[in-house]
Amino acid sequence: GKLPFCAMGVSSVIHPKNPHVPTMHFNYRYFEIEEADGTKQWWFGGGTDLTPTYLNEEDAVHFHKTLKEACDKHDLKLYPKYKKWCDDYFYIKHRGERRGIGGIFFDDVDSPSKEEVFQFVKSCAKAVVPCYIPIVKKHCHDSFTPEEKLWQQIRRGRYVEFNLIYDRGTKFGLLTPGSRIESILMSLPLTARWEYMHTPPESSKEAEILEVLRNPRDWVH
Amino acid sequence: GKLPFCAMGVSSVIHPKNPHVPTMHFNYRYFEIEEADGTKQWWFGGGTDLTPTYLNEEDAVHFHKTLKEACDKHDLKLYPKYKKWCDDYFYIKHRGERRGIGGIFFDDVDSPSKEEVFQFVKSCAKAVVPCYIPIVKKHCHDSFTPEEKLWQQIRRGRYVEFNLIYDRGTKFGLLTPGSRIESILMSLPLTARWEYMHTPPESSKEAEILEVLRNPRDWVH
Repeated sequence: GKLPFCAMGVSSVIHPKNPHVPTMHFNYRYFEIEEADGTKQWWFGGGTDLTPTYLNEEDAVHFHKTLKEACDKHDLKLYPKYKKWCDDYFYIKHRGERRGIGGIFFDDVDSPSKEEVFQFVKSCAKAVVPCYIPIVKKHCHDSFTPEEKLWQQIRRGRYVEFNLIYDRGTKFGLLTPGSRIESILMSLPLTARWEYMHTPPESSKEAEILEVLRNPRDWVH
Repeated sequence: GKLPFCAMGVSSVIHPKNPHVPTMHFNYRYFEIEEADGTKQWWFGGGTDLTPTYLNEEDAVHFHKTLKEACDKHDLKLYPKYKKWCDDYFYIKHRGERRGIGGIFFDDVDSPSKEEVFQFVKSCAKAVVPCYIPIVKKHCHDSFTPEEKLWQQIRRGRYVEFNLIYDRGTKFGLLTPGSRIESILMSLPLTARWEYMHTPPESSKEAEILEVLRNPRDWVH
């Protein structure tokens, strides 16, 4: 039968043209449902994650450090837990690699209290701009080669694979009758590329980021 | 426990550069399994289908007519049944449109006899070249505009959506431990594009093919 519910969220993805500016995604959401017996349930979910075409360690540290600081204000256990959750969630199983270098991800969070979780989620949301904009400003005028653009397009193909095959939001969204398809698929990049058996040369910049996508690192301690 | 099985097939996809040359896909396969009680089961499956960027009615009729002739040699009921199966199978539910203008598709075919089904599947496989190559020869030197190339890229985005979200071969392939990912994903186009809220103008050539993808036609009677 029908059960009353309330859902709200904000979601954003930026796929820059320049391969030296990473893709960034964030989503924060709140759900409230009333069960058949009248019990009310509520929870928050969300996260912020970074998907670079090339690894820049300084940027990775800045991104994770900014998220850690936002989490640490609330509970020192949050960042390590949600950092790992992010690495686990954005896993492209058939490739054995993650979509990007992670960030934080959490779902079904309903403790210690609604007000405290709300304050935490607000801290995360407020961290989006300081996480990402310094990286954009630093690299948006970097020059790039056609080879770097091509590698970006191949990585965007992997982004499409993750979103269409594994992402729960996309999967359930597309299955929901009457859902807004364009809002769900706006997370896809403008363009993507697939090349048969593409493997970057050993010790290349392309191999360097792949190594991090296969074995996530701890960026802050 | 482990059960003996034997599977073989041939699969091919061609994504031409020129938007006036349609994408063509075919796959023919044979399975044999031995159940726990020693019973042997076997079946054939497969199909051939066409995915044009723009509708060319003459080409659509030629493609379907050639498939119908291959089917009719065996049983007049086959083409109508497998034509409909193809339209149903290549349905992109969240878009309300099919991947292309169809062709034939069948699975689990184990009657009237192994030899007769094998002869039928051979007729289908032999029809691939006469179905498609005349269309390639007719259009491979057609000139095209950047706008036509762009629409091709958007249609390739839909091709990616179908293959990653709905195609059973892709889905089960990716879930199979030790499967060859590159062989499974070779069906994806070299490049694809997604544009937010892209809707072709009424009465345009782009709207014409969309109409056929939404409401499949009978091309031969």
